[in-house]
Amino acid sequence: MPSKISLKSVLSGLRVLEIGHFVAAPFCTRLLADLGADVIKIEPPAGDPVRQWGEMVEGRSLWWSMHGRNKRSVVIDLKSEKGREIVLRLAAECDVVVENFRPGQLTRMGLGPDVLRKARPDLIVAHISGYGQDGPGAHRAAFGVIGEAIGGLRYLTNHAPGMIDLPPVRVGVSIGDSIAGLYAAFGLMTALWQRDRAGGDGQARTIDVALTESMLSMMEGMLPEYGALGKIKQPGGGGISTAAPSNAYPTADGEWVLIAANSEPLFAKLMALTGHPELIGAPGYSSNPERVANVEFLDRLIGEWTREFSADDLTTRLDENDIPNSKVYTAADCASDPQYLARGMVRDVPDRHFGKVLQAGVVPHIPESPGAVRWAGPDLGEHSREVLTEVLGLDPVEIEELKRDGVL
Amino acid sequence: MPSKISLKSVLSGLRVLEIGHFVAAPFCTRLLADLGADVIKIEPPAGDPVRQWGEMVEGRSLWWSMHGRNKRSVVIDLKSEKGREIVLRLAAECDVVVENFRPGQLTRMGLGPDVLRKARPDLIVAHISGYGQDGPGAHRAAFGVIGEAIGGLRYLTNHAPGMIDLPPVRVGVSIGDSIAGLYAAFGLMTALWQRDRAGGDGQARTIDVALTESMLSMMEGMLPEYGALGKIKQPGGGGISTAAPSNAYPTADGEWVLIAANSEPLFAKLMALTGHPELIGAPGYSSNPERVANVEFLDRLIGEWTREFSADDLTTRLDENDIPNSKVYTAADCASDPQYLARGMVRDVPDRHFGKVLQAGVVPHIPESPGAVRWAGPDLGEHSREVLTEVLGLDPVEIEELKRDGVL
Repeated sequence: MPSKISLKSVLSGLRVLEIGHFVAAPFCTRLLADLGADVIKIEPPAGDPVRQWGEMVEGRSLWWSMHGRNKRSVVIDLKSEKGREIVLRLAAECDVVVENFRPGQLTRMGLGPDVLRKARPDLIVAHISGYGQDGPGAHRAAFGVIGEAIGGLRYLTNHAPGMIDLPPVRVGVSIGDSIAGLYAAFGLMTALWQRDRAGGDGQARTIDVALTESMLSMMEGMLPEYGALGKIKQPGGGGISTAAPSNAYPTADGEWVLIAANSEPLFAKLMALTGHPELIGAPGYSSNPERVANVEFLDRLIGEWTREFSADDLTTRLDENDIPNSKVYTAADCASDPQYLARGMVRDVPDRHFGKVLQAGVVPHIPESPGAVRWAGPDLGEHSREVLTEVLGLDPVEIEELKRDGVL
Repeated sequence: MPSKISLKSVLSGLRVLEIGHFVAAPFCTRLLADLGADVIKIEPPAGDPVRQWGEMVEGRSLWWSMHGRNKRSVVIDLKSEKGREIVLRLAAECDVVVENFRPGQLTRMGLGPDVLRKARPDLIVAHISGYGQDGPGAHRAAFGVIGEAIGGLRYLTNHAPGMIDLPPVRVGVSIGDSIAGLYAAFGLMTALWQRDRAGGDGQARTIDVALTESMLSMMEGMLPEYGALGKIKQPGGGGISTAAPSNAYPTADGEWVLIAANSEPLFAKLMALTGHPELIGAPGYSSNPERVANVEFLDRLIGEWTREFSADDLTTRLDENDIPNSKVYTAADCASDPQYLARGMVRDVPDRHFGKVLQAGVVPHIPESPGAVRWAGPDLGEHSREVLTEVLGLDPVEIEELKRDGVL
């Protein structure tokens, strides 16, 4: 176990300027803010659209409470020359800028990397976009679902060809945006490490993250196997094309339970439990490749057995026999999972509007200096005055002038 | 666009010891190696199982060529006391250790964090596991598919309840493992930055990444909405529950094409194109919430239109009308995409066994010091001699002795 000494936040001392919206860039900066960075989020007077996304209570998005947490919200009208100047003065005081406009848009707004780096020569700039900052397709509209499809994920998230007449499903969250945001967080930390370490080079670098490429990089053997063999990786429905038995199986009460019993000892335990000991070591079932070849029969046989039990009974039986399994967790299951609760990964967070909000904890867990939810998603412009005073040293008269001019 | 100066690799000067196997830890270190870190991968005499996973040519896994790239493979028998000593001497020369055994296993092997930090007091240790290093459920068997289910992803990756009688599909790759690996890479970079920067604290830290928690952190409004409203987020099949029309639609040649036309101008363009201008601004279709309420009708109407065209014809028509769209890319589509090719994100990499292997490029792209594939996945133990000579200063006689004793 880790040593118990208590250290300061791992990202204390880091200041980040977010000029972002929607999911990818704000997700990136949430990760940084959760670990202690000072994230200053620039919002237009209308606010980030996510403030209006998903389920709302009294006009306020619950998702925002988590998506915006630990950040400082500063409203600046980027269309005004004075607003642009304020952003440049803020950039001068920041280590990193994270943005997710379409490629070139920031430059058209007079806030391109060259301009930003006049204000702060060693600035790390992280761009998140659909297809990357250059290349013939850079300027296409970037919708998350399209990026996931181009990354190869959507094709593989389906039942086997011919099984059903419905479209391949979307992963139920904007997984491509979040993964791109996580890649950006990783990338900008590498650039900061090389810039700031003893013996480092003190240099500015650009982190150019594409949603499509972030997905493609996770596609395992898909490209190598296609290149060498012409093999087009195919979707496998609920199973894994290279392992059996491993699938989600139906229960008497209409749920699904995952069972992963694709090693020899686990397969033997499962067959004993299902009342089919005759298949243990039998021809056609004595190795993983043989079982993969007979997976339809196996899955049907296992499914007939699982249908006899409720999900709770089934998981209890499987647990008693040390066979890896799990219910397919819904939000309710996640909220009551003892392991999540023990690790603070499901926690109530005070929120001034909602009283409290159930949120996911901070990932990764760093026991010597655990991340914290210092505050829930801020009101629009909640920190405008504080940031301009503390970071730029503006006085109340200057701030009032900017407000009067519609810049703030 | 980024400045064109050419800098050294962003992670040059970083040395990483991987004591990992399967997907999560090796994926983490691939990301580090791609950006220039010296990754020393300790393998048991039998090698990482991924060397035998997926499609093989002459007994060699194609996936391995990408999964193992840019790393140095050193074979050490960790069951031997001398092997353990060698690992501790290597750890003394490394900045980070990345491991993904079951929690506690490394300690039982005599290589727990406390022991490693006797060799290297400021060592960053990144643990990747199914459920985290502590808590009541830490020691359960960690299968990727089960972690994804507990993270809430599996439930949401499905058609709407009642639509079909098949299990919720698996995302076709081990997405949970890869995301956990990416979180670990991010986390360890934050710890390195705080340790090594001017004014940093020079401290060792532990990065404790759980597969389940990595998924849960990406579930957007799922927990906040459940906590406040008791609402259990539901899967939406091919669509998005909060936007319409946005789905994958069938083509005359049996493919699927994504169309995202859920803004007012895009919806108007699409309705004009499909021959239904009467729906533009019509009651029930004049706002996104109204269209979501009528999504089944809309999707059927759009699907009837898309079925008239081949995928290529359809995407051409949609492109001509500036409506965001894409084929659902297979491996073959990814391999020939002009944007990927222009950015080096699909590239042939020399491989001594296969001649060349088609691989995904380096993410994130850092134009000032782009990552490189310096070599494809190494042979088992290919760098044992080189690493022990260069890093530990062993001489040929000592190395021969270790080989004779079965340690290497």
